[in-house]
Amino acid sequence: MLKNYLLTPGPTPIPPRVLETMARPIIHHRTPEFQKIIQEVEEGLKYVYQTKNEVLIFAASGTGAMEGSVVNLLSPGDKALVVRGGKFGERFGEICKAYGIEFVAIDVEWGKAVDPKKIDDILKKDKLIKAVYTTLCETSTGVATDIETIGKILKNYEAVLVVDAISGLAVTPIKTDEWGVDVCVSGSQKGLMIPPGLAFVSVSPKAWTLVERSALPKYYFDFKAYKKALGKTDTPFTPAVNLVIALREALKIIKEEGLDVIFDRHKKMAFSVRSAVKAMGLELFSPDVYSDGVTAVKVPQGIDGEKLVKTMRDKYGVGIAGGQDEMKGKIFRIATMGYITPSDLIVCLATLETVLLEMGYKFQLGSGVKALEELLR
Amino acid sequence: MLKNYLLTPGPTPIPPRVLETMARPIIHHRTPEFQKIIQEVEEGLKYVYQTKNEVLIFAASGTGAMEGSVVNLLSPGDKALVVRGGKFGERFGEICKAYGIEFVAIDVEWGKAVDPKKIDDILKKDKLIKAVYTTLCETSTGVATDIETIGKILKNYEAVLVVDAISGLAVTPIKTDEWGVDVCVSGSQKGLMIPPGLAFVSVSPKAWTLVERSALPKYYFDFKAYKKALGKTDTPFTPAVNLVIALREALKIIKEEGLDVIFDRHKKMAFSVRSAVKAMGLELFSPDVYSDGVTAVKVPQGIDGEKLVKTMRDKYGVGIAGGQDEMKGKIFRIATMGYITPSDLIVCLATLETVLLEMGYKFQLGSGVKALEELLR
Repeated sequence: MLKNYLLTPGPTPIPPRVLETMARPIIHHRTPEFQKIIQEVEEGLKYVYQTKNEVLIFAASGTGAMEGSVVNLLSPGDKALVVRGGKFGERFGEICKAYGIEFVAIDVEWGKAVDPKKIDDILKKDKLIKAVYTTLCETSTGVATDIETIGKILKNYEAVLVVDAISGLAVTPIKTDEWGVDVCVSGSQKGLMIPPGLAFVSVSPKAWTLVERSALPKYYFDFKAYKKALGKTDTPFTPAVNLVIALREALKIIKEEGLDVIFDRHKKMAFSVRSAVKAMGLELFSPDVYSDGVTAVKVPQGIDGEKLVKTMRDKYGVGIAGGQDEMKGKIFRIATMGYITPSDLIVCLATLETVLLEMGYKFQLGSGVKALEELLR
Repeated sequence: MLKNYLLTPGPTPIPPRVLETMARPIIHHRTPEFQKIIQEVEEGLKYVYQTKNEVLIFAASGTGAMEGSVVNLLSPGDKALVVRGGKFGERFGEICKAYGIEFVAIDVEWGKAVDPKKIDDILKKDKLIKAVYTTLCETSTGVATDIETIGKILKNYEAVLVVDAISGLAVTPIKTDEWGVDVCVSGSQKGLMIPPGLAFVSVSPKAWTLVERSALPKYYFDFKAYKKALGKTDTPFTPAVNLVIALREALKIIKEEGLDVIFDRHKKMAFSVRSAVKAMGLELFSPDVYSDGVTAVKVPQGIDGEKLVKTMRDKYGVGIAGGQDEMKGKIFRIATMGYITPSDLIVCLATLETVLLEMGYKFQLGSGVKALEELLR
């Protein structure tokens, strides 16, 4: 008999209160009842986003909203600046390429964060750049980007700032309005604690002016159609009804706890994970620019990283994530996002210790869990 | 105290067995456990589609897959033929327009079906047409299209046949392979009995050759990326995990009942609804080309159609659909799709009678329910 634990950076575990809403009979989406729900969700998202901007809701995974933030802002001949320091930063470049948008890439070594000054340097020289694409928390590496500083730089330019906050929203602060984030992209299956299938963007007045003149083709992700529907049918196409209803419940939980408490809790949990793995003699993959949502740890020499993740999952029921793409087998990732609690971390670290011991890694058994216990008290 | 009944053409009611799966703890999508589930779902969809073609699964509403069937098949300079006989036929035209694809439209009066000969006539003359877009069951009018005959015509041409079967799949026969449907689009919230949020396309070998050379831009709906993922990660982007799991259960129910029994059941239910409303002296909107999934009925003279739908829903808990766009207030629509049963129809017809009586419509009270009872025995 196994009890399953999910400590992956999306999907994250779903609180029972939220799960329960999805087992209720479905309702029709073009009714005052659903309209009230989706308007509550829009208000709740504005709270989490810390914005007064419109937040648009798509039935899609996060990538759909990333595509939306390219095809709605740019026009043929425009250029983009893309910060690529992991799988998801790279995705923005792939989308630009698919739509024939030339882009300047800042390639950041995986595990490092972009130096905001580099963005300033490029924008100074290249006036064709209309949008800067960056990532709040790069899920593939556990790196956090200094969006606040980038936002300050962008205020001197016409270009808009687009932030993929899929892995950071409701985990770590993202002050959309205060920091000048023009388009903030997010998804449902991380800090928002519901299943994947919803994606969101907030759109600033500055970004709307680009949307108005954008000449790239789009239909399903056409921001203008979603804006037009707000307050009327609320979505231009059939929404993912039961995920929206689940999100209302999750947002209630978030409001009850309060953003500041949530950010503080994630910060403490991520700090505890970092301390625990270090106490086991393990090395962090991004020691200086870590995010509070996911911690990437180097697989120690001589250990099969993929086998480690598989054994934890299949033999002990504890799901963590391996490395993606070029990091496959070289790192493993422990999430501290949403409904992942200290008790999950205790089980996770104890299991990590057990499996590493089985696999021949030399360390003091119990050292990770002890460090956790000291910090989580 | 009200008990709610949903007889809308999407979302349709969800069987308790399916609802229950969505309240289970979520699992990660990059695991052998989920891979097995999604492969079962792909097999199940092939059964419902009656196809050997690949069926691709998107986290999106049906419109997303409609967009996919434009941007993956065509290239700049290609032309399309679009059959427009309702809101959803028109949508194909809107998508073509958004992507700069010139199209020939066959405008069919709402409530009528296209004459397949017209398609033949146009294809004979215009060799630039690479794809024909049509609708199996037009949700906005209740009209069924003769896809089999259109498929036979298309066999003489290079153009591919794209069918929006969102409202028809698992309701009425759609023999994808036998009829020569190259791309069959569907969605989750109709005959498949799960919430909205998943969309599907089947793609024939003939269609894949167009996909290979298509030069329209795309990313999230790029068929090639989805094909490449089959048997590996299975989806290129995070799938809507709990909807896929729900779909597995719904497909099990469908297999247990069997397609032929399902089609027969829908046929009988739709026939019963038509007979019942006629017995009340009401007039069908599309008397000759009705679908088995939704029946459109003309609002009788002097009755406020929107108020009728609202009163049934708000005072009696029975959800039916009003008319959309140009049919607003002029028709109402009763669905017989998926998990809508004869007992739902009895309640619906009795409520329709009650409300029409309240609103001053002259007819023999009980006549509709009596006709239903005679037929449903």
